[in-house]
Amino acid sequence: MVANPQRRTDVTDAALAVLGGGGSRALTHRAVDTAAGVPAGTCANYFPRRADLMLAMAQRIFVRVAPEPHEVARLEGVPDEEALPAYVAYVVERLLRNPDLTRALIELRLEASRSPEVAAVIGPFLRRGAAEDMDFYRTRGLPGEPRIVLTLHHVVNGVVLDHLTVPLDPEADPVAVATAATSRLMRDLD
Amino acid sequence: MVANPQRRTDVTDAALAVLGGGGSRALTHRAVDTAAGVPAGTCANYFPRRADLMLAMAQRIFVRVAPEPHEVARLEGVPDEEALPAYVAYVVERLLRNPDLTRALIELRLEASRSPEVAAVIGPFLRRGAAEDMDFYRTRGLPGEPRIVLTLHHVVNGVVLDHLTVPLDPEADPVAVATAATSRLMRDLD
Repeated sequence: MVANPQRRTDVTDAALAVLGGGGSRALTHRAVDTAAGVPAGTCANYFPRRADLMLAMAQRIFVRVAPEPHEVARLEGVPDEEALPAYVAYVVERLLRNPDLTRALIELRLEASRSPEVAAVIGPFLRRGAAEDMDFYRTRGLPGEPRIVLTLHHVVNGVVLDHLTVPLDPEADPVAVATAATSRLMRDLD
Repeated sequence: MVANPQRRTDVTDAALAVLGGGGSRALTHRAVDTAAGVPAGTCANYFPRRADLMLAMAQRIFVRVAPEPHEVARLEGVPDEEALPAYVAYVVERLLRNPDLTRALIELRLEASRSPEVAAVIGPFLRRGAAEDMDFYRTRGLPGEPRIVLTLHHVVNGVVLDHLTVPLDPEADPVAVATAATSRLMRDLD
């Protein structure tokens, strides 16, 4: 079998959809082949071991959830005092736009707590993202301590986990909740 | 087989440990029997369907993560301005004291997003907990809007998810991070 990078990516994306939609129990070679619409045995061919597939998914998901360049450009034009709430709103909106992908990210985080191999892929990506957010904070000269960005990550993850699983308040708008929390956390730092 | 409520509870607790430790894929009748130290077939006897076991776990976990009465009494004696940070610190500390149980709660939340039956058990429990927290807020006459309690739940869940999976900053103290966020969110409301 000749390696086909596009097909490998398609299979990995299908695996993310299966994991996010059905949980780790649903993730079988056969389910991924079906979701990808490829012949039986394709996923097993690319990823003989479950751990191989997990690692490919961990690498791929950060491409899938990366911010869109045109949105980053837009956010660069937002005035300082609104920059962080606008950025947080965009992150929440982007994560909720693809619920199964975001659930897959939570599943991969849980998998990382059980698998040092998966943790070794996911950890550096997540930390680099947070470091880039702190750089954005410093570059913009926003008030207060750039480490507040870590707290904003926790707020976003908590809001998203709530909304995608069992919302405490099904009527609440998760983007508004996260944005309001960001504004409050910021204002205090002036 | 005569129903034995204590054994049923023991099996359910073992299932929570298996789910939290290994994820939904690890949760099999056989793994639960082994973890509970009971004869093979016991878990299948109490919970023939996986859905039955999931529901029993969803009901049981809220007993397991409930606040301890002596801690609630202690928190009632904390001065108003420190009450909420102290309460949040206790919740984070309690959740992190039993990592597999708390991971099981996250797994059950994800399961709820796929299973209306599980959502129907977990949703009311989580919402009742949040409503009780809002009552605590009102009874204490704390400043601002009781709905901020929902945001605090998101902060706690985000901090706990981070700490139990892939910490952005492995050196950070999750209790301190959650407490500081709470104080900031509160102070702004004065």
